[in-house]
Amino acid sequence: MSRLDSMIRRLTTQRASLDWAMAEIAGLPGPVLEFGLGNGRSYDHLREHLPGRDIFVFDRQVGAHPDCVPPADRLILGDFRDTAPAAAHRFAGQAALIHADVGSGDHAASRALAAGLAPHWATMLTPGGLLIADQPTAGDGLEVLPLPEGSPGRYFICRRPR
Amino acid sequence: MSRLDSMIRRLTTQRASLDWAMAEIAGLPGPVLEFGLGNGRSYDHLREHLPGRDIFVFDRQVGAHPDCVPPADRLILGDFRDTAPAAAHRFAGQAALIHADVGSGDHAASRALAAGLAPHWATMLTPGGLLIADQPTAGDGLEVLPLPEGSPGRYFICRRPR
Repeated sequence: MSRLDSMIRRLTTQRASLDWAMAEIAGLPGPVLEFGLGNGRSYDHLREHLPGRDIFVFDRQVGAHPDCVPPADRLILGDFRDTAPAAAHRFAGQAALIHADVGSGDHAASRALAAGLAPHWATMLTPGGLLIADQPTAGDGLEVLPLPEGSPGRYFICRRPR
Repeated sequence: MSRLDSMIRRLTTQRASLDWAMAEIAGLPGPVLEFGLGNGRSYDHLREHLPGRDIFVFDRQVGAHPDCVPPADRLILGDFRDTAPAAAHRFAGQAALIHADVGSGDHAASRALAAGLAPHWATMLTPGGLLIADQPTAGDGLEVLPLPEGSPGRYFICRRPR
């Protein structure tokens, strides 16, 4: 599979997962948290489909298209390992949806990073809240769910039990 | 449409156009030229599907994933406006396929760049050769063809008449 094929698979699955999750949390109050702004594509997708929802975004630095930079009071900059503990305290039991797109080219480092953040993400979720991630995030009391239909790539969905 | 939707459309159409073109030139000798290496996704797609074909790549600088950098003798670095005239001389009437992905965030500049390069591309093509581009490239004696089926985005296909 070429890198072009691979990118199309990844983005298609990311979108299918986010679309499914946004419909799923329609009746569930709470903010949406995104870990990994990147170039702002998925943030743009979330804010377009969730106009009334608070969306807080975490990243090391801003590398997004200027149109896709969150407002300053919704943007938490810094290494995830430094910002996640305070965020877990601030958003404990509140988040309806967390989208974590934290992978880099380094496969092992990406896995380790997600494994270290997963307990904080579990803490942030409201009962019934969803975690959509580009890395495996089983454990921490979360229920692992299957990907929605039409998802050719690798993505991971968990729910905090009610 | 979100930037995530837009990216999926663009890549899906790019792949459909390249897949169609690669099948179309199966019996047509000549090198493949790519203007715009970018991160190397489409170059990786071309070389995977055209193992016996010479592929020459033009870009201002190398920004691709290390796995997707062409060999030094197949890589022509520099501003397209500087490298295209010499390439038109070197490859005159030879190229079976040109893939031009030269757009940037600046819409008007992208159009102007492609318009300036189009006559050179037309010169490089062998009779029956195809130009697949992310910018409109009508004129210059090329025949404009429709996009293949299943192409939701904007891409442009031309053929040099035989």
